[in-house]
Amino acid sequence: MDTRPIGVFDSGVGGLTVAKEIMALLPNEKVIYFGDTARVPYGSKSKTTIVRYSQQIVRFLLTEDVKAIVIACNTANSYALEEVKEMFSIPIIGVALPGAEMAVNATQNYKIGVIGTEGTIKSEIYSKLINQINPGAEVIGKACPLFVPLVEEGLINDSVTEEIARRYLDDFKQKPVDTVVLGCTHYPLIEDVIQKIMGDKVYLVNPAFETAKNLKDLLIKNNIENSEINTNHHHYFYVSDRAEKFEEFAKIILNYPMMPVKQINIEDY
Amino acid sequence: MDTRPIGVFDSGVGGLTVAKEIMALLPNEKVIYFGDTARVPYGSKSKTTIVRYSQQIVRFLLTEDVKAIVIACNTANSYALEEVKEMFSIPIIGVALPGAEMAVNATQNYKIGVIGTEGTIKSEIYSKLINQINPGAEVIGKACPLFVPLVEEGLINDSVTEEIARRYLDDFKQKPVDTVVLGCTHYPLIEDVIQKIMGDKVYLVNPAFETAKNLKDLLIKNNIENSEINTNHHHYFYVSDRAEKFEEFAKIILNYPMMPVKQINIEDY
Repeated sequence: MDTRPIGVFDSGVGGLTVAKEIMALLPNEKVIYFGDTARVPYGSKSKTTIVRYSQQIVRFLLTEDVKAIVIACNTANSYALEEVKEMFSIPIIGVALPGAEMAVNATQNYKIGVIGTEGTIKSEIYSKLINQINPGAEVIGKACPLFVPLVEEGLINDSVTEEIARRYLDDFKQKPVDTVVLGCTHYPLIEDVIQKIMGDKVYLVNPAFETAKNLKDLLIKNNIENSEINTNHHHYFYVSDRAEKFEEFAKIILNYPMMPVKQINIEDY
Repeated sequence: MDTRPIGVFDSGVGGLTVAKEIMALLPNEKVIYFGDTARVPYGSKSKTTIVRYSQQIVRFLLTEDVKAIVIACNTANSYALEEVKEMFSIPIIGVALPGAEMAVNATQNYKIGVIGTEGTIKSEIYSKLINQINPGAEVIGKACPLFVPLVEEGLINDSVTEEIARRYLDDFKQKPVDTVVLGCTHYPLIEDVIQKIMGDKVYLVNPAFETAKNLKDLLIKNNIENSEINTNHHHYFYVSDRAEKFEEFAKIILNYPMMPVKQINIEDY
C-alpha cells in the first residue's frame, strides 16, 4: 500500500489520453502529469536533446515524490526510455512495449500496421519491439503528420479528417493488415474515423489502454498500489509554458473539471 | 559599400520565404539564415521565452558579422522586435510593419483581413500596426492553424487545403474585406489557393516581399549595400536541431541547390 502519485509525462497534451486510461483503470491512484508545452514537438528533435529533456522531467517528477513514471510520449519512449531507466532507480515504463505486445497477441495474419508521427515511424520503435517478440511478423509503418494538427483543431468527426485518413491508410489496405497500432497518443481521439476507413475486421491497438494495464501489473508486482479511495480526483497538472490551450484540450480529453494547471521552468531541473 | 551578410531568422523553415524575396530583390547580398528547429513552434510560447530566444539568435548572428537583421517570424516580431532593437545597436527590422504599411496602401474600403497562426492573431500585431497608420481601418483577424502543417505536408495545390481554406476564409467574405495580409511566412506558398477562394478582386499582401523592399531602403539609407556581385549564392544556413527535413523544404522554397546546413547549439549564445 503506497499513497504516492504516479508520474506521467508527454511533450504536450497527447499523453493525457494515457493519463485518462490510468485514471479509469486505477481510480485510487493520483496522477502527476507533466506536459512539456514549451518544447513541444519532440518528433523533430535529436536523440541527445530528447534524452536531456526526459532526464529533466524525471528529476522534476521525483521532487513530487512519485512512485512510478509512465513515459506517455512515443518519441521520448523511443529515444530515452532505456537511458532514464538506467539512470534512475524508480520503475519507469513507456507506451510502446505494451502496444507492441498487444499487437502481436491480436494479429492473425502477422501483418501489422503502425501509424504515428514522422519521428515515431522513422525510429521504427514498434517494428523493432514487435519483431523482438515475433521475428516473423511483417510490420508496415506509415507516418500521418496531419493527424495531430487535425485533432488539435477539433476536427474529430470531420470529412477532411476522413479524407486525409483515407489517403494515409490506403497503403494498409493493399497488404492487407489485420491489426493497426495507434502509435501516437493523439490518435485514440480519432479512433472512430480510423476504424471506419480500415473496416470492422481490422483490430485497432490503443497503447494508452495497454499501458494502463501494464502499470496495474507493475504496481501489484511491486506491492505499491494505493488502496485508499481517491474520490476527489486529486490529480495535478504541470506544463512548461502557457497553460491556457492545455486546459482547454485537457477538459475535452479527460471530460471532468480540472485542477488549475501550474507552469514550471523545466530548464531548472 | 559593405560586403558583410544580412542575418535572417525564424523559428523554422517559414522564414525562408522571406530570405527568398531578399535574395531575389538584393542579388548581391549574402544571407545568413538561422532556423530555430530545436525550439519550433514559437506560437504557443510566452513572451519572456521568445524574447530570450531572439536575444540568443541575435548574439549568434553577430558572431557571423552581419550588418543588419531581419526577424522573419511573425511571433518573434510581435513579442521581441522592440526588445532586441533596444538591446543591440545593429539595424533590425521585422516582417509585420512592412506588411501593415502595404495593406493600408492597398485597401480601398478600409476592411482588411489578416490571417496567421493562433499566436500571431492573438497578439493582434497587424491590427495594432494598421490602426497606428490608419485608425479608421477595420481589421479582421483569422487564425488558420492547419495551413502550416498542410504546407509542410506538401499539400500545396490540393482539394483538402482548398476545403480548409474555404472554411477559414468564409468570415472574410461576409464583411467583405478587399485586402488580406498573409500574416505567416508559410502562407505565400499557398497564395494561389487563397486567391482562388477569395476571388480576383481581393488584394493579397505578402509581407515577405514588402520586407525585402524595406530592407533595400534601409541598406541604401545607411549606405551599407553590397555592390560586389554574388553570383555564387554565398548564403549560409544554420539550424538548432536536425538539418535533414530543413534541407528538403529549403530546396522546394528556394529552388536552387543549397549549401550544406550546419547545426549549432543555440543555448550557448
